[in-house]
Amino acid sequence: MPHPDLSDRAKRMEPSAIRAMTKLAAGAGRDLISLAGGMPDPATFPLDRLADIAASEIRNHHGRSLQYGMTAGFRSLVEWICKYLRQNGIESTPDNLMCTTGSQQALDLITEVLIDPGDLIFVETPTYIGALAVFKKSGGVMIPVAQDEQGIVPEDLEKQLRSAPSDKTRMIYLISNFQNPSGVSISADRRKQVAEIAQHWDAFIIEDDPYREIYFDAKNPPPPPIATLIPDLTFYLGTFSKIVAPTFRTGWITAPESLLRKVELAKEAADLCGSMLDQRILYRFCNAPEFVDHLQSLRKFYAERGLTIQEALSEFMPAELAWTHPSGGFFVWLKLPETMDSESFLEEAISKEKVSYIIGRPFTADNSAQNYLRLAFSAEPPERIREGVQRLARVIKRRL
Amino acid sequence: MPHPDLSDRAKRMEPSAIRAMTKLAAGAGRDLISLAGGMPDPATFPLDRLADIAASEIRNHHGRSLQYGMTAGFRSLVEWICKYLRQNGIESTPDNLMCTTGSQQALDLITEVLIDPGDLIFVETPTYIGALAVFKKSGGVMIPVAQDEQGIVPEDLEKQLRSAPSDKTRMIYLISNFQNPSGVSISADRRKQVAEIAQHWDAFIIEDDPYREIYFDAKNPPPPPIATLIPDLTFYLGTFSKIVAPTFRTGWITAPESLLRKVELAKEAADLCGSMLDQRILYRFCNAPEFVDHLQSLRKFYAERGLTIQEALSEFMPAELAWTHPSGGFFVWLKLPETMDSESFLEEAISKEKVSYIIGRPFTADNSAQNYLRLAFSAEPPERIREGVQRLARVIKRRL
Repeated sequence: MPHPDLSDRAKRMEPSAIRAMTKLAAGAGRDLISLAGGMPDPATFPLDRLADIAASEIRNHHGRSLQYGMTAGFRSLVEWICKYLRQNGIESTPDNLMCTTGSQQALDLITEVLIDPGDLIFVETPTYIGALAVFKKSGGVMIPVAQDEQGIVPEDLEKQLRSAPSDKTRMIYLISNFQNPSGVSISADRRKQVAEIAQHWDAFIIEDDPYREIYFDAKNPPPPPIATLIPDLTFYLGTFSKIVAPTFRTGWITAPESLLRKVELAKEAADLCGSMLDQRILYRFCNAPEFVDHLQSLRKFYAERGLTIQEALSEFMPAELAWTHPSGGFFVWLKLPETMDSESFLEEAISKEKVSYIIGRPFTADNSAQNYLRLAFSAEPPERIREGVQRLARVIKRRL
Repeated sequence: MPHPDLSDRAKRMEPSAIRAMTKLAAGAGRDLISLAGGMPDPATFPLDRLADIAASEIRNHHGRSLQYGMTAGFRSLVEWICKYLRQNGIESTPDNLMCTTGSQQALDLITEVLIDPGDLIFVETPTYIGALAVFKKSGGVMIPVAQDEQGIVPEDLEKQLRSAPSDKTRMIYLISNFQNPSGVSISADRRKQVAEIAQHWDAFIIEDDPYREIYFDAKNPPPPPIATLIPDLTFYLGTFSKIVAPTFRTGWITAPESLLRKVELAKEAADLCGSMLDQRILYRFCNAPEFVDHLQSLRKFYAERGLTIQEALSEFMPAELAWTHPSGGFFVWLKLPETMDSESFLEEAISKEKVSYIIGRPFTADNSAQNYLRLAFSAEPPERIREGVQRLARVIKRRL
């Protein structure tokens, strides 16, 4: 058997650290409390309603719902998303909005269209692992930018842009609300600053916003997206994975039209089109009046867990630790003393205390954040979140 | 608004000629007979059974069928595909088989993993448009190889390989059965010759086999895939799009394990995972005893259309024309006299005679095949196929 050289892109692909952790955790059995996996809780999926819609969408339409569809997406759903985005101040039309196979595909396609090896991509420290994998594969050079509890630090962004070769500056990747992994949101003031900086440096913003609707205080939705400030420079990404269910594999991008047409061509080569059936189901579900109630119940559901984990952290964690206080989303970012490495007690946590989490390092472009870890509060019920934090605190205390 | 340089990959993306034709045809109204679109007929989709399965898969499993899944695919379906492939002589296991978002994604991921700009990809003339788009985007150099009614011509393949720089030779792309667009299958003898040539030149075979099950003569299934001869050199691709329905966006690859692990990483970056629900539905449907009957009824359904188009071509087309005689699949490849260009009368065919087809050129790597066109007999009922061929013959006769 020949062992051919792999492509340069393939050489840059590496198994994510999360995979190894998932394997480790899988060996721990069913009594493991997982604060690792950041999936939505299946208990939030409206099963009966979706089952009814799916059966009816398959039976009606003379089989057209099972056929190939347009690359840019099912037109009624595309129009629905435009209407939905207008509520958040984003003026998009079917000419500059398309559906993707989850937001992950959006990241992959945009990167394919914009990035050549050596181009610069500015990323927060920490940021989403799946984006880092895409950027790495592309051969783009990632420049880490500092983040604090108000989100990306504009002064540091500007500093990094200034010291980089400006002809290589291409894009800034941000998760504006309840970031994965930190739970932090970018404040309204900082959104304005970031928009001005992007404009000054002619850099695109890739604004990834999967958690926007999962805000805990019903009276306090997130500020308008950066996309509302500089639509001509922003690729704004959303998804149904967190507000309906991941299986429908449907996200969206709104972006300047001429660039979006290239992204559409990239999607055509990547997988021809998304599932017509899934997009029809989403349209029927989201276009019904009950969708507003569904969102409200999601917010309550995750707010309870967000509150629970904060209370448990306060109660059980030693004073040397710090953590973020997200007002939405699925995640808390825990900071250990500088000299501690979150990887050093992972095995002990899983095998002895039966609790899992994700270490900080893979969420960074520069292998930093060794003394951080990510806790997800989305996939376990409140009493197990509390118990999980208590177990983790025991391990950490032994190490201090 | 800045107009940044697009990436090199984006610069190589172009709207396919099929898009323009689809637009042209869309303007012609509902009385157009489409011999253009090569989709399966929705009348073959088992709607009631799929609706029942979908509803039950959503309602049961406590929401797990709507959750994120493994990148390599739903394990029961992966095992089912392995069992199914063993019937065709392919010995694969869950270690060297994975699911993809349709076969299109398989092509995209394999190309990403194997091809750097300048690498050589040997393709038949003609071949599948969607593969050409992927290869072009990669920066790989496509080398056209002759095809006749027995499939790829081994002597020409060898000649092309000999005259190319061997350190750049990477892969040979083939559709072994009822090829899109020609309808031609590679004979058993030629499969052996091709396998020997690939082995001699250390080239991978990308064996794309979407139409395998759609053979017209129930007693005469296609010969074993090339993958059975040189499994260590073959990426073998299949799909549920033609045998169940395209909406489930599920295909598969079986390949040497170490390379497949890279393809799996590429998929993780591309879209994380396929739809769990779709894969569960496919598993339930295909694992039932009725699946064998379903395949048999599909064969009969398309055999009638394949026969109809052959009869109509014989009856209506002038003697100067030639065409292929597929024993399965969806397509016939029609050859005009050398001096005729199939594009020159496309508009007339659509607007005056209300019949559409796809011109030959976009199916080639070298912009040849001007005097060819593709006729699909999959998406129209027999009486309209007959009428469509008669209409097309009228246009062609006027031009002769």
